[in-house]
Amino acid sequence: MLDNTQGLHVVAQTPFLPDGAVDHDSIATLTDFYHGHGARGLLVLGVSGEAQTLTPDEAVAIAASYVAASYDLPVIAGVSSPNLAILAEITEQVRAEGVAGVMIAPSAGVRTEEDLLAYFDAVFTRIGDVPTVLQDFPASNGVLMSVPAMARLLETFPQIAVIKEEDMPSARKVAALRAAAPRPVRILTGNNGLYLPQELARGADGPMAGFSYPEMLSGVDRLLREEGDSAGAHTLFNRYLPLLKHEAQGAMGIALRKEMMRRRGALAHATMRAPGAALSADDIAELDAILTHMDLPA
Amino acid sequence: MLDNTQGLHVVAQTPFLPDGAVDHDSIATLTDFYHGHGARGLLVLGVSGEAQTLTPDEAVAIAASYVAASYDLPVIAGVSSPNLAILAEITEQVRAEGVAGVMIAPSAGVRTEEDLLAYFDAVFTRIGDVPTVLQDFPASNGVLMSVPAMARLLETFPQIAVIKEEDMPSARKVAALRAAAPRPVRILTGNNGLYLPQELARGADGPMAGFSYPEMLSGVDRLLREEGDSAGAHTLFNRYLPLLKHEAQGAMGIALRKEMMRRRGALAHATMRAPGAALSADDIAELDAILTHMDLPA
Amino acid sequence: MLDNTQGLHVVAQTPFLPDGAVDHDSIATLTDFYHGHGARGLLVLGVSGEAQTLTPDEAVAIAASYVAASYDLPVIAGVSSPNLAILAEITEQVRAEGVAGVMIAPSAGVRTEEDLLAYFDAVFTRIGDVPTVLQDFPASNGVLMSVPAMARLLETFPQIAVIKEEDMPSARKVAALRAAAPRPVRILTGNNGLYLPQELARGADGPMAGFSYPEMLSGVDRLLREEGDSAGAHTLFNRYLPLLKHEAQGAMGIALRKEMMRRRGALAHATMRAPGAALSADDIAELDAILTHMDLPA
Amino acid sequence: MLDNTQGLHVVAQTPFLPDGAVDHDSIATLTDFYHGHGARGLLVLGVSGEAQTLTPDEAVAIAASYVAASYDLPVIAGVSSPNLAILAEITEQVRAEGVAGVMIAPSAGVRTEEDLLAYFDAVFTRIGDVPTVLQDFPASNGVLMSVPAMARLLETFPQIAVIKEEDMPSARKVAALRAAAPRPVRILTGNNGLYLPQELARGADGPMAGFSYPEMLSGVDRLLREEGDSAGAHTLFNRYLPLLKHEAQGAMGIALRKEMMRRRGALAHATMRAPGAALSADDIAELDAILTHMDLPA
Repeated sequence: MLDNTQGLHVVAQTPFLPDGAVDHDSIATLTDFYHGHGARGLLVLGVSGEAQTLTPDEAVAIAASYVAASYDLPVIAGVSSPNLAILAEITEQVRAEGVAGVMIAPSAGVRTEEDLLAYFDAVFTRIGDVPTVLQDFPASNGVLMSVPAMARLLETFPQIAVIKEEDMPSARKVAALRAAAPRPVRILTGNNGLYLPQELARGADGPMAGFSYPEMLSGVDRLLREEGDSAGAHTLFNRYLPLLKHEAQGAMGIALRKEMMRRRGALAHATMRAPGAALSADDIAELDAILTHMDLPA
Repeated sequence: MLDNTQGLHVVAQTPFLPDGAVDHDSIATLTDFYHGHGARGLLVLGVSGEAQTLTPDEAVAIAASYVAASYDLPVIAGVSSPNLAILAEITEQVRAEGVAGVMIAPSAGVRTEEDLLAYFDAVFTRIGDVPTVLQDFPASNGVLMSVPAMARLLETFPQIAVIKEEDMPSARKVAALRAAAPRPVRILTGNNGLYLPQELARGADGPMAGFSYPEMLSGVDRLLREEGDSAGAHTLFNRYLPLLKHEAQGAMGIALRKEMMRRRGALAHATMRAPGAALSADDIAELDAILTHMDLPA
Repeated sequence: MLDNTQGLHVVAQTPFLPDGAVDHDSIATLTDFYHGHGARGLLVLGVSGEAQTLTPDEAVAIAASYVAASYDLPVIAGVSSPNLAILAEITEQVRAEGVAGVMIAPSAGVRTEEDLLAYFDAVFTRIGDVPTVLQDFPASNGVLMSVPAMARLLETFPQIAVIKEEDMPSARKVAALRAAAPRPVRILTGNNGLYLPQELARGADGPMAGFSYPEMLSGVDRLLREEGDSAGAHTLFNRYLPLLKHEAQGAMGIALRKEMMRRRGALAHATMRAPGAALSADDIAELDAILTHMDLPA
Repeated sequence: MLDNTQGLHVVAQTPFLPDGAVDHDSIATLTDFYHGHGARGLLVLGVSGEAQTLTPDEAVAIAASYVAASYDLPVIAGVSSPNLAILAEITEQVRAEGVAGVMIAPSAGVRTEEDLLAYFDAVFTRIGDVPTVLQDFPASNGVLMSVPAMARLLETFPQIAVIKEEDMPSARKVAALRAAAPRPVRILTGNNGLYLPQELARGADGPMAGFSYPEMLSGVDRLLREEGDSAGAHTLFNRYLPLLKHEAQGAMGIALRKEMMRRRGALAHATMRAPGAALSADDIAELDAILTHMDLPA
């Protein structure tokens, strides 16, 4: 089901009401916003979707709301967990709600190539034939997968249809994966889109990232992959880069992104559940200064 | 409710049937076994209770079975999770099943003293007035809490009634905590009981550990804390030390412990859910060689 | 001697000949280049100076060459080491060669605030009254220092004259340090200059960073701190941002920076000692594509 | 030169005078002590030889003193360092002083199997044909080498003559290495000797460990490997186990070991350079209590 994955897959926010409850109404406006700005698919329940703050029931309900609102865009759900029983249970539940696939990063304890194979063997024994995005993101889980190790995963587990590549430097790794993959696989790239022109030039199939101007991500992808317009792609990318970089700052970056999306009408409240990320007056002034000195469309 | 905690608190196993389902019948025999060998309380759903392999529903059901079987022994449930929403939900559910308290280790991301205070502030804001065991176990979560930091936690959060101390060298840290604690607190010690005589001599209130001969743990505790018989305590401890040390080997150690407890009739099957821990014929021969050359009671 | 530290302090490259020997001649041209583009000081023997590949004797000789070429610019030497005996020995030797101070990050084993105080107590007991830059860079050493902990270091150790702040988000931490510092201290910021306008706006005294166009770093610093020209500073910063970001990619980034500096005539060879960082034809084409689509001065 | 390595290789202490200077006179008495209690070789400059506190010149001088005193026992020097230039320089210098080989653990940054191969390629390119002990000790450096990865190292680098195995559970890994090794290799085991009977039973060639009663380590090795007396070996091992376990407690354990060796006349002073390890009166009382309740020879 994920075999033809390409183009922008937005890493979707989880909207909250001011009291911290999930804001299911804003899921509909968010989905409109993503769809209207070029998304070809959605990744929900990722780290920047604040999945770590959700109970399993909430997580499943959010996936269901996104599926209901999604215009036939495929919805992929992040289900990584140190607990395989929870991973399997949530996978089953979100599949029942209609998600097209799941995204899984190996658990923090995985160290050797043998461990890695054993880990995914345990995963797929439990979840079965679910289309899967393999997330390669060592900055988050501490697991460094070599290119030969990832090739072995592709060889062994036909469920892996897509790789989300965000090991740095990512453009080099995309090229190495393309050269080493023993079968066709789709490669999307993350890292907040910071290296998108380079990743696409080296063979990526699109971005899987969040940004308050998703039209930049889809535009760069279209210009480079479909129109071969490198100059146009770089110009568009550079224009938004100061804000893109500013949003790529961990939990504070998510807070900034939600604030920007609130201003753009994509969600009702910028509330985050994750502790410590509330924006101060200085943070807002800093954001405004960046916006003032950029050349954004009106 | 945990204010008078002392004596052996057994880190309880989770029994499984050969097909991997939870063996609730064996929970009753295990509880008899622990009770009959001197337990004054039970810690369920710990790491060596294979909590990482259980769904939240399974975890709550296991806690309930232990409470039902527990002879008025207080049952404490491990609820640590990187996800505070899950931690809070399980806490509420196990409390409803009658556990006396919960055990919590700070999440792996906690680094500075400020982080630590903020973490437990977030925890207690969510779970409220639940009697809590603070677990100090850096080998597991990578969080090193200094003695002054732990004193600040005790000062700030009256819910913390007990510390489970297993930072090495643990006997020294027990003494330092006793000297620095701003209010009375109970201190139990873990690390599989490997340093029990020293920890008790420096002020610990008992062991919180698992061992296939819990009568050794309760015996050493009684001899040292109640009877002041240091010679007797060391002699008893040394007699069992070869097996105690052999069981203290991570996942393989749990498999060995379950095998020993199966042989002693405490549970029906030595099955583990955790992958990779199955015992080979060589592992069994190794265990038998150790037992042969020890002077165990018939 | 570092009490009036402000303005651009360039993180200097170590030039090598094609055979891997240290290229002392290029140290003179590099120093001219840094000086001519606004440097007020130099940091030598940092991570991006490939210090991990140098013997102690080579390191001291490099510091000496920089001091000899430095136009009265203060030269600060990175001396961090897991081995305090080596740290102290190199400190003594580079001081004898005339460096103005040293930069030290706590060793990877340091975890609690108590450890941190004990670590710097051991350091300063050995090295004495050497003006010191305290480097706060958890992405490199895994040591997260809280603001209160850093305030205690400032209180306890008068040798600390400067903080190199590169804990993310860095602008927030600069502001927090300014508010909490118990005495005057200079704050320079790193992270390859990626957040420079924000850091300066929150109270930093200048950048301590490397970039192949150091005139941008010194220009942004002058415009913001001396001329109060926020618009000019942002415009200048944004103009160079695509390349700045591209150079901020670990070992590959250093290789790219050296290649750019070779093109600009600042050093004779782009050779790196660090393994794995050699640039491929694709890497060069990628760099050229970025340059083509930027609006760099002729 | 290390091809016939077997039997006890003592992890040697570095003796210091009360003022912290290296006590070269005690190196002679220590060597007598190790030799007289069954050592077939020495490992100097290991972690428990406090190598992290020595300058390179001191380290080389200590190796030279051990070689001079060593009765034709081979002396192996630990040379691990995050800095390959220092590793290579010290290797060359200790070889010039007559050491039989060096011991190297991969540097902390090594993560994938590809990294591992590249790391040792860089090492052996620099040091050439030096007989080498490969140390497998993830608890110290965070590098987990799988059995297939170690087999590839053996295949690729003929310099590796010995493996020091201390990844847990070590007896299992010894057996797996024996089964997978593509050529003959000697395997010594560490972890303070805590699992020695099991490791020898699974195919190890002897211990490489420190203990204040090295005659136990050499005795267990002789009884099991040469005389096939399993009962005798276990009995001897168990008799010393309470102290063996007590010495296996990191920096404090080294302090205890030095104190015991001082009492036995093996060195003049128990002084450690490593900070934080000084023994308190309570630590001494604790040690004495353990000794009192053991059945040690007079």
